[in-house]
Amino acid sequence: MAGSTIKDCDVLISECGPRDGLQILRAIMPTQAKCRWIAALHAAGLREIEVCSFVPAKLMPQMADAAEVVRFARTLPGLTVLALVPNLRGAEAALKAGATKLTIPVSGSEGHSLANVRKSRAEMVEEVGRIVALRDAIAPDVPVEANISVAFGCTIDGHVDEDEVIALAAKLVGVGVDDSGLSDTTGMANPAQVRRMFGRLIDRIGARCGAAHMHNTRGLGLANCLAAYEAGVRIFDSSHAGLGGCPHAPGASGNVVTEDLVFMFEAMGIRTGVDASQLIAARASLAEALPGVDLYGMLAGAGLPLNFPYPHPDPRV
Amino acid sequence: MAGSTIKDCDVLISECGPRDGLQILRAIMPTQAKCRWIAALHAAGLREIEVCSFVPAKLMPQMADAAEVVRFARTLPGLTVLALVPNLRGAEAALKAGATKLTIPVSGSEGHSLANVRKSRAEMVEEVGRIVALRDAIAPDVPVEANISVAFGCTIDGHVDEDEVIALAAKLVGVGVDDSGLSDTTGMANPAQVRRMFGRLIDRIGARCGAAHMHNTRGLGLANCLAAYEAGVRIFDSSHAGLGGCPHAPGASGNVVTEDLVFMFEAMGIRTGVDASQLIAARASLAEALPGVDLYGMLAGAGLPLNFPYPHPDPRV
Repeated sequence: MAGSTIKDCDVLISECGPRDGLQILRAIMPTQAKCRWIAALHAAGLREIEVCSFVPAKLMPQMADAAEVVRFARTLPGLTVLALVPNLRGAEAALKAGATKLTIPVSGSEGHSLANVRKSRAEMVEEVGRIVALRDAIAPDVPVEANISVAFGCTIDGHVDEDEVIALAAKLVGVGVDDSGLSDTTGMANPAQVRRMFGRLIDRIGARCGAAHMHNTRGLGLANCLAAYEAGVRIFDSSHAGLGGCPHAPGASGNVVTEDLVFMFEAMGIRTGVDASQLIAARASLAEALPGVDLYGMLAGAGLPLNFPYPHPDPRV
Repeated sequence: MAGSTIKDCDVLISECGPRDGLQILRAIMPTQAKCRWIAALHAAGLREIEVCSFVPAKLMPQMADAAEVVRFARTLPGLTVLALVPNLRGAEAALKAGATKLTIPVSGSEGHSLANVRKSRAEMVEEVGRIVALRDAIAPDVPVEANISVAFGCTIDGHVDEDEVIALAAKLVGVGVDDSGLSDTTGMANPAQVRRMFGRLIDRIGARCGAAHMHNTRGLGLANCLAAYEAGVRIFDSSHAGLGGCPHAPGASGNVVTEDLVFMFEAMGIRTGVDASQLIAARASLAEALPGVDLYGMLAGAGLPLNFPYPHPDPRV
């Protein structure tokens, strides 16, 4: 079973809304609103939040306040302050700002890698090695994860070779990352494939298997998380109100909705440490901070069921 | 494995939109529009459609044209024309009209049974026995199914006893129904419970295990279908555009969306016989026939992926 960072919970929900959710919006959320949102997510029980990415402000003005957001998030007790870094320069900035965990996206297909970071996959593995060396030198306690984007299918290359994805994860572990997960960036994964791929990943890199980062583009987000759980995954990325998604799939929502994911696990008797009702309540201020932006998720409309939390005659079945 | 009526497919998708989807709407769809819709669903490959319910027209004016709709549906080649009947009187009318399969809802909780049909569960089992006797006498080739409503939780009684649900299904088989499935009428089921309950049901009644009728009220619809599939279920109820749902959960959508369900199975290499792209195309005329009614589903917004249908290196994994 992967997920060695989890304490007192059966799974770790890694909230990616403040990074993944905001980066594709045209609107820029003010820093104070970001901090209020992150505080509300922490108050609901989330213990890992991807708060920003360290990228050039001229390319992504939504993230220009990354260092300030990290400094605020550091004040929240028990929170892993996760920052996305696409390269060594971003990693330097993130560590300087005080991020307590780094995440590096590495494309599973050559076409997506070249389009996204103008580097081949092999060049990205070298870059990840340089980031790990920097971490070892100046911040040895900061875990570094590298998740494989478009691991289940690519909008540029189409089919993505499964052997190549697994081999890439092994290479990333080989250059020193703490864990490597698989991301369905384009919403093309299906549960059979998710179970097969994570099964292979765990066979290959064992406890270094990282997060399942599933999208709900075509409605399979939770089914894919269920399949990943069954394969042994214990870290799940999701986004409050399902913010985020793939700019290459217009009209489609993106990330798995944290509220619904927490409900699924808790209903199954799988402890997340997160209070779904607080997540629902926090949607109101999010909607206020992002006027005109669609919020996703089914639980918020229906509310928690009458007899929730359910009795569990046979937990962990 | 249940689902003996399936030919050339791995699962049977039983479309319930024209009955379940329309009955909770205030608007009444004109008979001609219903027939066009049913024809489009048939053209997309659906081979079982619940086209109406036989209930008093003064209680449910949306279904006043039930006999006419059945007569039209009978003209579509290879289609199982399923009609819902709540009692013996409805069964007489449905058989007279020419329905080729009957479905009877039987509540899993006493409170829901009394509220819904003003009969206890024991009285409903007797009524089902009378319907089976009628079928045997005048239409012996017409299968009768009895699915258990609120099998996973009830908005009136809260927790529903699992032993009682399984015993009820066994009683229904005892009075002669061809199959009995489980319905998550209120959207309270979770995948662990679905797997456990259908596992118990198949242990108890074997190939007489009927459909998984899951709702997407809280987002778990497809995850619950996946769990049911893994437990051995091979018949799945769903609704085009997710029409329908639970009148006791305002703001919440209802049935599993047929488009998304077909996509999940086909992406996994599980054959449904249904063309998802035709289902997506058929939403336009449905929207026209039901102005102001929300249509649900994620696949329609995103479209089918670039490399669909996927290669299946190891089908049936």
